[in-house]
Amino acid sequence: MGGTFTKFGLVDRKGKVYGSGSISTDTHKDVELYLDELCAAIRKLVAKSEGKIELRGIGVGAPNANYYSGAIEFAPNLKWRGVIPLASMIGSRIGVPVAITNDANAAALGEMMYGGAKNMKNFIVITLGTGLGSGIVVNGGVVYGHDGFAGELGHVNVIEDGRHCGCGRKGCLETYVSATGIKRTVYELLARRNDESELRKIPFEKLTAKNISEAADRGDLIAAKAFEMTGRILGKSLADVVALFSPEAIFLLGGLAMAGDYIFKPTKVYMEKNLLTIFRDKVSILPSELVKDNAAVLGAAGLIWKEISD
Amino acid sequence: MGGTFTKFGLVDRKGKVYGSGSISTDTHKDVELYLDELCAAIRKLVAKSEGKIELRGIGVGAPNANYYSGAIEFAPNLKWRGVIPLASMIGSRIGVPVAITNDANAAALGEMMYGGAKNMKNFIVITLGTGLGSGIVVNGGVVYGHDGFAGELGHVNVIEDGRHCGCGRKGCLETYVSATGIKRTVYELLARRNDESELRKIPFEKLTAKNISEAADRGDLIAAKAFEMTGRILGKSLADVVALFSPEAIFLLGGLAMAGDYIFKPTKVYMEKNLLTIFRDKVSILPSELVKDNAAVLGAAGLIWKEISD
Repeated sequence: MGGTFTKFGLVDRKGKVYGSGSISTDTHKDVELYLDELCAAIRKLVAKSEGKIELRGIGVGAPNANYYSGAIEFAPNLKWRGVIPLASMIGSRIGVPVAITNDANAAALGEMMYGGAKNMKNFIVITLGTGLGSGIVVNGGVVYGHDGFAGELGHVNVIEDGRHCGCGRKGCLETYVSATGIKRTVYELLARRNDESELRKIPFEKLTAKNISEAADRGDLIAAKAFEMTGRILGKSLADVVALFSPEAIFLLGGLAMAGDYIFKPTKVYMEKNLLTIFRDKVSILPSELVKDNAAVLGAAGLIWKEISD
Repeated sequence: MGGTFTKFGLVDRKGKVYGSGSISTDTHKDVELYLDELCAAIRKLVAKSEGKIELRGIGVGAPNANYYSGAIEFAPNLKWRGVIPLASMIGSRIGVPVAITNDANAAALGEMMYGGAKNMKNFIVITLGTGLGSGIVVNGGVVYGHDGFAGELGHVNVIEDGRHCGCGRKGCLETYVSATGIKRTVYELLARRNDESELRKIPFEKLTAKNISEAADRGDLIAAKAFEMTGRILGKSLADVVALFSPEAIFLLGGLAMAGDYIFKPTKVYMEKNLLTIFRDKVSILPSELVKDNAAVLGAAGLIWKEISD
């Protein structure tokens, strides 16, 4: 579930997708009506199989979703205010077990069950989209923490009194390292430097990580510097993260990660440069192995299949 | 096992100590001779009970000790170079199960089994001695990470190009926040400011956290400012740690923690000030509840009792 769209799909235990669909998240002001529509669409998808598919459970990746409470709690990017007991609301409509967590934790579970982390017990998944989310796995389990909200790497402070963050504070990692963060870096560079750049033609609201990546392909200096700066800040933060968690690998996914080497290379260089000696050349930085279009759905499926198996 | 002394004790499952002792760690250049002496002392302590005590296992907290491999690996503070397979070397001498980990992880296990974290599943123990160590517990288990060296909070970077650290890098947290770190802060303040201070009489090598604490008791401005600065840096770092782990509590112990309110108060203030809204007023900062003299021994005992029980 994102702020704009909700994607859903039928996934078996092995990660095979048997059909999928999507509805708008933001057409209904009343969450009950939204869930009526969503559950009707899910039932329809199951019905299509003519009895061949039995629905065993529902996993949900949603903003500010709390695994423990089964509720979405004070999500700034959703219309519905306060605490929404999503798991029980879906469960009462469809009558199967429901588990929820945030998008990044779901992505980590998807990576562990169906992606590149199949044999890993300690790894981290970082989603680089509008913000920066992280799903952290320790000893084969997602780190939810005491209250279910652990893994907020996007809100670690990296620059004292730095860029304003949506969380109300300043200098959070996601204000520098995310699809939005690199846009801000491009604009900062365009303001500071005199180099020609095709990015001077694009208004802030239209600029995307893809534009920046394409400009870099054409040798645009500002674009190249923006990736370098972004990778430097991410790499430096990852060195700290490695000191705390000692993961086997760190997976990057989402819009900014699609830029490939432009972001992976400087991230790796600056992580290694800042690592404590004992961790050097030990931690891989890898692209997610979940098929791009189904990553969200596979993550949510991973959550509920793990739940049912445990 | 510390760089100078090795303490040992007989501890039952409930944390009752039946006798203890200590030997020098650094008298023998040959680790075999050191272990001969240590194991003889342990056997003697057990023999004293005249058959009433049965030795079930040995837990060891030691610098750079790797839980997975059972070895001390490249410990800068010990005489013995390279990789020392400590667990098997002790096991072959005494014939009981042996588990080892670093001091901070052992402290966390001690706190969980016998101290203030008895009912906690997610908490962190921070040792503020010569350096800063951390034992992190997630879901009731210590975070060892992929290679056994997770939990190096002392080596998270807090000041770019900051103070030189024993690890060979600059600006690590422990160069500011530890018994040694606050000494460095005092000297920085004495250099920068003109205020009178009793601490101007004490050479760097003799200055202790206790001196600074006693000076603060007498209203010494430099001492007070040093605690404030130390708590500010620790509190800010803890805000980031909370965002990642969402612990129920953070325990402080060791020389600097003995300063009580002088260090706890600013730490709490600056942690709260820097926390993401969802974590505010939720995370306690507490003194360790392990009896000071036995903290190390109880931690090591906690490690092996947990091992035997699991």
